[in-house]
Amino acid sequence: MQPKINFTPGPSQLYFTVEDHARRAFRDGIPSLSHRTKEFESISNDATGGLRELLSVPGDYHILFCASATEIWERVIQNLVEENSFHLVNGAFSNKFYETATQLRKQAGKHEAMPGEGFPEINISSTELIALTQNETSTGVSMPVNYLNSFRIKNPEALIVVDAVSSLPYPKFDYNNIDSVFFSVQKGFGLPAGLGVWMVNDRCIAKAENLLSKNIPIGSYHSLPTLVSMARKNQTPETPNVLGIYLLGKVVQDMLRRGIPIIRKETEYKSAILYQALSNHPHLKPLVHDDLWRSKTVLVASGGGQTEKITSFLQSRGMQAGDGYGSAKPYQLRFANFPAHSKEQYELLVDTLADYQG
Amino acid sequence: MQPKINFTPGPSQLYFTVEDHARRAFRDGIPSLSHRTKEFESISNDATGGLRELLSVPGDYHILFCASATEIWERVIQNLVEENSFHLVNGAFSNKFYETATQLRKQAGKHEAMPGEGFPEINISSTELIALTQNETSTGVSMPVNYLNSFRIKNPEALIVVDAVSSLPYPKFDYNNIDSVFFSVQKGFGLPAGLGVWMVNDRCIAKAENLLSKNIPIGSYHSLPTLVSMARKNQTPETPNVLGIYLLGKVVQDMLRRGIPIIRKETEYKSAILYQALSNHPHLKPLVHDDLWRSKTVLVASGGGQTEKITSFLQSRGMQAGDGYGSAKPYQLRFANFPAHSKEQYELLVDTLADYQG
Repeated sequence: MQPKINFTPGPSQLYFTVEDHARRAFRDGIPSLSHRTKEFESISNDATGGLRELLSVPGDYHILFCASATEIWERVIQNLVEENSFHLVNGAFSNKFYETATQLRKQAGKHEAMPGEGFPEINISSTELIALTQNETSTGVSMPVNYLNSFRIKNPEALIVVDAVSSLPYPKFDYNNIDSVFFSVQKGFGLPAGLGVWMVNDRCIAKAENLLSKNIPIGSYHSLPTLVSMARKNQTPETPNVLGIYLLGKVVQDMLRRGIPIIRKETEYKSAILYQALSNHPHLKPLVHDDLWRSKTVLVASGGGQTEKITSFLQSRGMQAGDGYGSAKPYQLRFANFPAHSKEQYELLVDTLADYQG
Repeated sequence: MQPKINFTPGPSQLYFTVEDHARRAFRDGIPSLSHRTKEFESISNDATGGLRELLSVPGDYHILFCASATEIWERVIQNLVEENSFHLVNGAFSNKFYETATQLRKQAGKHEAMPGEGFPEINISSTELIALTQNETSTGVSMPVNYLNSFRIKNPEALIVVDAVSSLPYPKFDYNNIDSVFFSVQKGFGLPAGLGVWMVNDRCIAKAENLLSKNIPIGSYHSLPTLVSMARKNQTPETPNVLGIYLLGKVVQDMLRRGIPIIRKETEYKSAILYQALSNHPHLKPLVHDDLWRSKTVLVASGGGQTEKITSFLQSRGMQAGDGYGSAKPYQLRFANFPAHSKEQYELLVDTLADYQG
């Protein structure tokens, strides 16, 4: 049995309403609905239309469904890069995005920061694509939106692609200063894993079509032109995760009813009280020193030799902290702060951490 | 509201037990379970171990998870073909497999049969891979297992890859005469869409590694070596559809309890009574003339000008027939005959078709 409050950064705690929506989905035959029906198109349109409103996505962006954000790393490189991409790397996931480009035999450059640190102003020599991991899930470093916006002016030719896997729906992006954003649903949206959402503007489509015109392979069923032409009809090239798309649409509607300003304000409140608790704690401290670069959605703490004992203590109080990523597991903890985590749960977490005597 | 019996060939009717398993999954926290846990590894092992037993998959085959069979078309070509593949095409889906190879810029050859017809003995000049769509979902033509087995002797160097998307768990393959089989779960396994299963032997892995050694890109997170190295640990490269894998494992256990011989016998019984009903019907007839090539799992009927009226008549009796595929929609019907369709439901279908007066 799982402890009842799940702070692991993903798959994470389900949004409050997911179980009810799933029950209704089974009652209404959604899991066996043909994806080539008007009903499916309406379900798909509910999800994309709702996301467009929730995240203020402009009309010239297309919203596409893939299987995972990991798939989207591959599709980004395959469809948008002929020769070279440039990556800002400060942890395991931004590095995997970089490695995806090398595996696809592109000339990938990177600027590496130490794990847990932000980036300076970077001058990038000519590149086709700049890959920005806005929220590095392994270390809890998050790029301020102003920092993201600084790339366009200095690199007007490059496509700017933003991995927002573990931050959306929190950040308020300026879509005019970027060209693509993506996320997966099992983090900030509190849904079962198995669906990635890829948002692209027309510059991305033009780039993919340009590669195609040069006879460069850009994939098959999930090439950007194929995805977009199906998405215009609220369709997908393959039989998709219909249940996942249905649940996404329902949760997005729930979030719209709650209001994105409230969700953002609560995210900030919860992150503030946890960072304060970590800063004041005798055994824990925030991994990220610079407040400007601290993630509000994945908070990482250094726990030194007390880490495992703190995890056990939280479990004994019904809470599951996320382990530190990879080799940091013995001495770091991660706490997801997603819309599914209530203020009360965060207050309980903070109080419980204060109770820990070591 | 959906009619209560769903004969569309996929997504199709859910297996009897899926809704209960899903309810239990939510109760036990499966949809928010981290995929990097022992619990997930156990869930993954349940699914692959169960499939191995149910389908008599030999020990030298690896069982891998992808997002869809459509994805697997791409991964097959990307990982197993350097220059050329050869495809047997007799309908929309076998042709899409062929097109996938051309989109990935391979020299793809094909032998085309008329839709609804089987294939003669074919002599293939040297090729790296032979793609056999064992059950063509668009037209209901199915390759007998003996026919599949005939390729190895004449083409010992080629990898033989079998698309069994809409036939498994029914066919009894001779795995020594083929190298790879794949399917998606929303057809014969009666599960929600969003998961494909790819089975490969060591020859396939060697081929992918050979391409890699020549610096030919074979993808990133879902390259065959990456998939296999993670699968050995009951893991996946990306965050997978955890709920889908859990449900697959549960349904496979249910099928094992029922017994695959009984499932196969019932499939044959249901297909026999429906083909007989179609043959005797005043307005319908089987699309596939040659009994040897008639699919037992996707039965296609020509209905001429009566097709739409028959669909409506079945709906009025609580049954949803599948439309003919693509342009055949106005004059053909398709009936899935999967383990989720009971003998009683098939008897009711047959009786209801007999009631139709036109």
